[in-house]
Amino acid sequence: MTEQSRGRARSGRRPGDSGTRDAIRAAAREQFAEQGYDRTSMRSVALQAGVDPTLVSHFFGSKQKLFAEVMQLPFDPSAVIPRVVAGDRAGIGTRLAGFVVSVLEAPEGAARLTGLVRAAASEDAAAAVVRERITHDILGPMAAALGSDQPELRGSLVGSQVVGMVMARYVVRIEPLASLPAERVVALISPVLQHYLAEPLA
Amino acid sequence: MTEQSRGRARSGRRPGDSGTRDAIRAAAREQFAEQGYDRTSMRSVALQAGVDPTLVSHFFGSKQKLFAEVMQLPFDPSAVIPRVVAGDRAGIGTRLAGFVVSVLEAPEGAARLTGLVRAAASEDAAAAVVRERITHDILGPMAAALGSDQPELRGSLVGSQVVGMVMARYVVRIEPLASLPAERVVALISPVLQHYLAEPLA
Repeated sequence: MTEQSRGRARSGRRPGDSGTRDAIRAAAREQFAEQGYDRTSMRSVALQAGVDPTLVSHFFGSKQKLFAEVMQLPFDPSAVIPRVVAGDRAGIGTRLAGFVVSVLEAPEGAARLTGLVRAAASEDAAAAVVRERITHDILGPMAAALGSDQPELRGSLVGSQVVGMVMARYVVRIEPLASLPAERVVALISPVLQHYLAEPLA
Repeated sequence: MTEQSRGRARSGRRPGDSGTRDAIRAAAREQFAEQGYDRTSMRSVALQAGVDPTLVSHFFGSKQKLFAEVMQLPFDPSAVIPRVVAGDRAGIGTRLAGFVVSVLEAPEGAARLTGLVRAAASEDAAAAVVRERITHDILGPMAAALGSDQPELRGSLVGSQVVGMVMARYVVRIEPLASLPAERVVALISPVLQHYLAEPLA
């Protein structure tokens, strides 16, 4: 993050930097989500943002750092996770399934999450970013909120079912899963998330 | 498949075609699995196979058809699925989990399945091939073998958990899931596969 922090530190002194960085972020977000990690380059992002390619390196350092910067989750985990995990244990699977599916049914949320999953699948450098994001931003707070036995394992099992649902319904679009109403999907995966989060594990 | 069938029909008349096709298949299989669908081209496959690029088009028609040809499952679904699905209902989740994990723990099986999942995530053309393969080769036979209520839905739910496990443990490598012994993974996902396959759905 050195390059990126440096870019930020300098931006206070140079009016216009903030707009440039925003334009680069917007272009990168779109290209990573639509073309995947592989086919997005510092140069293609610069071209779309209408800036010199050297500015992209200057502000963000590397493609991997740019990816980490823009592929944010479409929600604030520190606000959402305690809310979902708190409350009665018997409803935790349904609450989490409802939240995940509501994010995925919103176009912006779907684009960001499928973008993350697509990118993670495409290249080890992107997978490393996604792994760190999931571990720190989601599994860590979830484990802390759960506070039960094996919270990290429970979180990663939930992650496997959520990522699999993203792939099966939204990326590969396997039927009949792809065409089900959202509330049906919530009902179908709730018992599984409930099991992973709150029932005894093998 | 017209181009491909034409290639096959001609091969009977030209000795050496079979070796050439095998070399192209081997190179394509390796590149699709290791570099993904995007970065594999007819030209890069030809280069690695040591053949003229026009021969790749001649035998296989298009990149998508070449992909469909070589990204076979690392097992014969028509033999495996009835064996896994048959027998006592109470053990179906454990049998399927055991089979899936045993395939994924073998290097060749892991390379093929992660290759399929990576490719499916990377581009719509590859996702279409994977969707058709999963639907016809796996979900169809599984639905026929299950013969219970909503067999297609059950199959696609199982698919979501299996693909998610491939992503979480073998591609993104989320901990602690990535480092667990194989038999622990079998034990952890068995109840979920059991639920999807044999218990009442919401």
